[in-house]
Amino acid sequence: MSAHIQDNSALVLFSGGQDSATCLAWALDRFAHVETIGFSYGQRHIVELECRERLSSGIKAMKPEWARKLGDAHTLDIPTLGEISDTALTRDVAIEMGEGGLPNTFVPGRNLVFLTFAAALAYRRGIANIVGGMCETDFSGYPDCRDETIRALNSALNLGMDKTFELHTPLMWRSKAQTWKLAEELGGRTLIDLIVEQSHTCYLGERGSRHDWGYGCGECPACSLRAKGWAEFQATKESVR
Amino acid sequence: MSAHIQDNSALVLFSGGQDSATCLAWALDRFAHVETIGFSYGQRHIVELECRERLSSGIKAMKPEWARKLGDAHTLDIPTLGEISDTALTRDVAIEMGEGGLPNTFVPGRNLVFLTFAAALAYRRGIANIVGGMCETDFSGYPDCRDETIRALNSALNLGMDKTFELHTPLMWRSKAQTWKLAEELGGRTLIDLIVEQSHTCYLGERGSRHDWGYGCGECPACSLRAKGWAEFQATKESVR
Repeated sequence: MSAHIQDNSALVLFSGGQDSATCLAWALDRFAHVETIGFSYGQRHIVELECRERLSSGIKAMKPEWARKLGDAHTLDIPTLGEISDTALTRDVAIEMGEGGLPNTFVPGRNLVFLTFAAALAYRRGIANIVGGMCETDFSGYPDCRDETIRALNSALNLGMDKTFELHTPLMWRSKAQTWKLAEELGGRTLIDLIVEQSHTCYLGERGSRHDWGYGCGECPACSLRAKGWAEFQATKESVR
Repeated sequence: MSAHIQDNSALVLFSGGQDSATCLAWALDRFAHVETIGFSYGQRHIVELECRERLSSGIKAMKPEWARKLGDAHTLDIPTLGEISDTALTRDVAIEMGEGGLPNTFVPGRNLVFLTFAAALAYRRGIANIVGGMCETDFSGYPDCRDETIRALNSALNLGMDKTFELHTPLMWRSKAQTWKLAEELGGRTLIDLIVEQSHTCYLGERGSRHDWGYGCGECPACSLRAKGWAEFQATKESVR
């Protein structure tokens, strides 16, 4: 481990969902060395973490260059986050809108905690770039996904660790359909199929039944968003033909 | 628990050291309701956490008003922080200067993690004010103690949780001697004696031997700073007589 910050290395927040799988391919396309970090915090969709290995193996197998670039996969255990949060993501309660217009899946500061831990690890690993799948477009009102939040945190991290990290959020302004499109550009049909088959988005933590767009309950907000994005992506392809 | 943010409530980062004990008294003097939060992250000075209860009991006993105001004491377990950090604060190695002019006691982003978890808890508890003992004056070069860092993080937290938290750092511009002076102003000789007797500052996690300024190894940077501050505080008192 080196205290030297490498401009050409990246640490990808990799949960095993559609967005982070796309971010991993994006980072492998762009940086010379890529490591991943996943978090375990008592979430109901722990199956996401089990998808990580199958997804990263699949992505690694796609291009020899990507296989060479893909380094360590880190997993950090933050049980406390689940305890503080006590939300529908960590308890077996119905997902619904709570006070202040936020769904009760909101874990306060979740992305702030993730990015801060990622930066601490990046500091130790000598990695300058941190990549996350935060997105304003379909963000369900989560304030910690906003571009403004990420920028403010980037400043706080750089000041607080006295380093020049760059937080990258390649999906920030993309719709879910555009995220599918990006995956296609990066890895063609092979990557699309891999993401459909192996990534997990459903809040309920169930593989559920097979849909065109992948597995899930098909009912929760995350499944609905994924299904809608897939339909739009397919519609674009149809209209191009 | 309420989603409503109370302007007159505070959550104090309370480690059981001299600084945080002074911050607790400061908050009790200023806010209507005060809760505390401590972190366990595999630090060598775990004895600090054991000091918390004795200190808060002592502080509570000092004024009936303070006893009424002092609410829950929360402890969050963040073992991962120790694992990532791998510094002299969490391992049995000599404390020395590392690369980049920082002592090897630097846990990257420690205060960022603490404040973010504190804000997540404050969110759940409906508390608007967060109080921490960060200090630039004697800060040993830790970049996460800088006023600029705290201000940037305050913005990131408010944006990321969509709340108006105020981070207070009453010791930011005080020397250790001035921190003793503040404790005296807040709680007189009783508070000074309590802090000397019950607070823990030593990096080595040992009660050590009894000095004028309290217990500790007397050798580590934290003990040296505390001893120096005490001597200056005493000198001021002498010159006033």
